[in-house]
Amino acid sequence: MGKTQITAEPGMPQIIITREFDAPRDLVFRAYTDPELLVRWLGPRDLTMTVDEYDVRDGGRWRYVSKDAQGNEYGFHGVFHGTPSPEGIVQTFEFEGVPGHVCLETLTMEERDGRTMVRTSSVFQSVEDRDGMIASDMERGVRDSDERLAELLATLQAG
Amino acid sequence: MGKTQITAEPGMPQIIITREFDAPRDLVFRAYTDPELLVRWLGPRDLTMTVDEYDVRDGGRWRYVSKDAQGNEYGFHGVFHGTPSPEGIVQTFEFEGVPGHVCLETLTMEERDGRTMVRTSSVFQSVEDRDGMIASDMERGVRDSDERLAELLATLQAG
Repeated sequence: MGKTQITAEPGMPQIIITREFDAPRDLVFRAYTDPELLVRWLGPRDLTMTVDEYDVRDGGRWRYVSKDAQGNEYGFHGVFHGTPSPEGIVQTFEFEGVPGHVCLETLTMEERDGRTMVRTSSVFQSVEDRDGMIASDMERGVRDSDERLAELLATLQAG
Repeated sequence: MGKTQITAEPGMPQIIITREFDAPRDLVFRAYTDPELLVRWLGPRDLTMTVDEYDVRDGGRWRYVSKDAQGNEYGFHGVFHGTPSPEGIVQTFEFEGVPGHVCLETLTMEERDGRTMVRTSSVFQSVEDRDGMIASDMERGVRDSDERLAELLATLQAG
């Protein structure tokens, strides 16, 4: 089982996240782009996710909301740049709790021997924005998401 | 008349461009978003620009092509993140000559005493991408564009 690596160099407006999954690339891509699968793995375990829109095409918009047990809602939205494919997904990303702060996410997937390495690079409008993201609960969300995705991929392959 | 400032710190995947224009913000915004005005100032003086699409809304796509005297064509495209307004425009940007290399542009406009300060921040997927942009003919394009925009704004206000 892979382990999630999070790299955030000091003074750079970027975060790079890598993780290998024991599943073919097409399946990983499906998990990233099918809203019915997305809600089963994206976000921390104790939050419930709802997808408002997920229009997987060039210029398509996406928006989802995470809700905690107290009923607090956390919205996120963005648009796809270019047509998402198993080779890669490029999209903008904005947390609605800090409106006007946007980042550009580039996700690439590489398959080798039936396993898929997913690399996500996020570049921010400033180092302060990047540091704000790091200071938030991001890491827990990323690690929970990756564990949940690994579990989902195992379930889908067993099914 | 303002002067264009281009800032590119070593080792940072970012370029910041600022320029003050002697025109109210709403007019500057129109020049940035009306394709009929855009072709009159965007790009180096010796190239001819054609707008393929310019769908100024959240998720809207834009694409334009610059053509030189020899008939060489340079295509650019991207999508808008959020609804463009005189306060700001956030969009992705890709030069089709180097496909797959995308940057995130954030443009803000501030008006003071009838003059408008335009600040454009571009963040790239890597420092290499940023350095590649600097090494290209970018600076000439930026300076020509800003001079042409200043001239166009003067013409529109005189008219």
